[in-house]
Amino acid sequence: MSGSKEFGVRPGEKTVELPAKPDAGVYFIGSIHTPWRTRDDCPKNARESDAVCTVALDPRFADALKDVETCSHLVLLYWMDQSPRNLLVQVPGHLGSQYGTFALRSPARPNPIAMSVVKLLGIEGNNLRVIGLDCLDGTPLLDIKPYLPSVDSVPEAVVGWRTKKE
Amino acid sequence: MSGSKEFGVRPGEKTVELPAKPDAGVYFIGSIHTPWRTRDDCPKNARESDAVCTVALDPRFADALKDVETCSHLVLLYWMDQSPRNLLVQVPGHLGSQYGTFALRSPARPNPIAMSVVKLLGIEGNNLRVIGLDCLDGTPLLDIKPYLPSVDSVPEAVVGWRTKKE
Repeated sequence: MSGSKEFGVRPGEKTVELPAKPDAGVYFIGSIHTPWRTRDDCPKNARESDAVCTVALDPRFADALKDVETCSHLVLLYWMDQSPRNLLVQVPGHLGSQYGTFALRSPARPNPIAMSVVKLLGIEGNNLRVIGLDCLDGTPLLDIKPYLPSVDSVPEAVVGWRTKKE
Repeated sequence: MSGSKEFGVRPGEKTVELPAKPDAGVYFIGSIHTPWRTRDDCPKNARESDAVCTVALDPRFADALKDVETCSHLVLLYWMDQSPRNLLVQVPGHLGSQYGTFALRSPARPNPIAMSVVKLLGIEGNNLRVIGLDCLDGTPLLDIKPYLPSVDSVPEAVVGWRTKKE
């Protein structure tokens, strides 16, 4: 994938030649409906918005939702299908200097899989109402997991470059 | 994928016919080295072990590690390539009753992508030393992300079925 016009390579960015073919395949198991139709519309991060979004699961997988309604928060994985995959060093527009792709949550990465922690409001049939997303409307869904605070919550974690450079 | 012998379908489990072909492809960008060679060896969850594991990134992607050393914790995504993908309702051996796949962190899921939060001890070249994994030795790596407590940490999250049924 060469990336859409919105994601051109900026001065200071480094790219890589990707492997000739993928190693494994993913299924799109549903889609995510949000209020945001362009990348500029999207909040810079998920805590900037309390918009209610809808996760529409393909009915084929509906039985796998059993017990999910008992979870207050979920981990969602989804596929950022508009992003280039060959950027190793990026210059995010709102930061203006160079960062390694693996130090960023940018959608541009070798495997454009985003991870968001969302609050579950309710489930009606195959549709989950959630708060905590910042992705484009129509983004393909890959996975739903229960959020386990015992292993997933690390309040004291530090991202050093943010305090130094931002 | 029909799954290995270790992952046979148990009484009470439900399967689904998967789509004929995948919707997108992932690259294996490295591999994870752990002390565990069989599924029975693996800790039941990552907080059960403080074993130091090594994430060996393919040198092709090394430039993308810039600034990662400033992160105290990382989100790792990896590919549970030994797992069946067609289970919707599972009966985990240590729980003994039925749960929806999306209410579990089991490696058996339509897209067998695991997510773990790890503590970063250090980086030498393309190798990251981390604590907090529970996967098999040789597991393929998909992504490395900075852990952002502002969006990723929810200490008060609840998984209701765990308190009711366990």
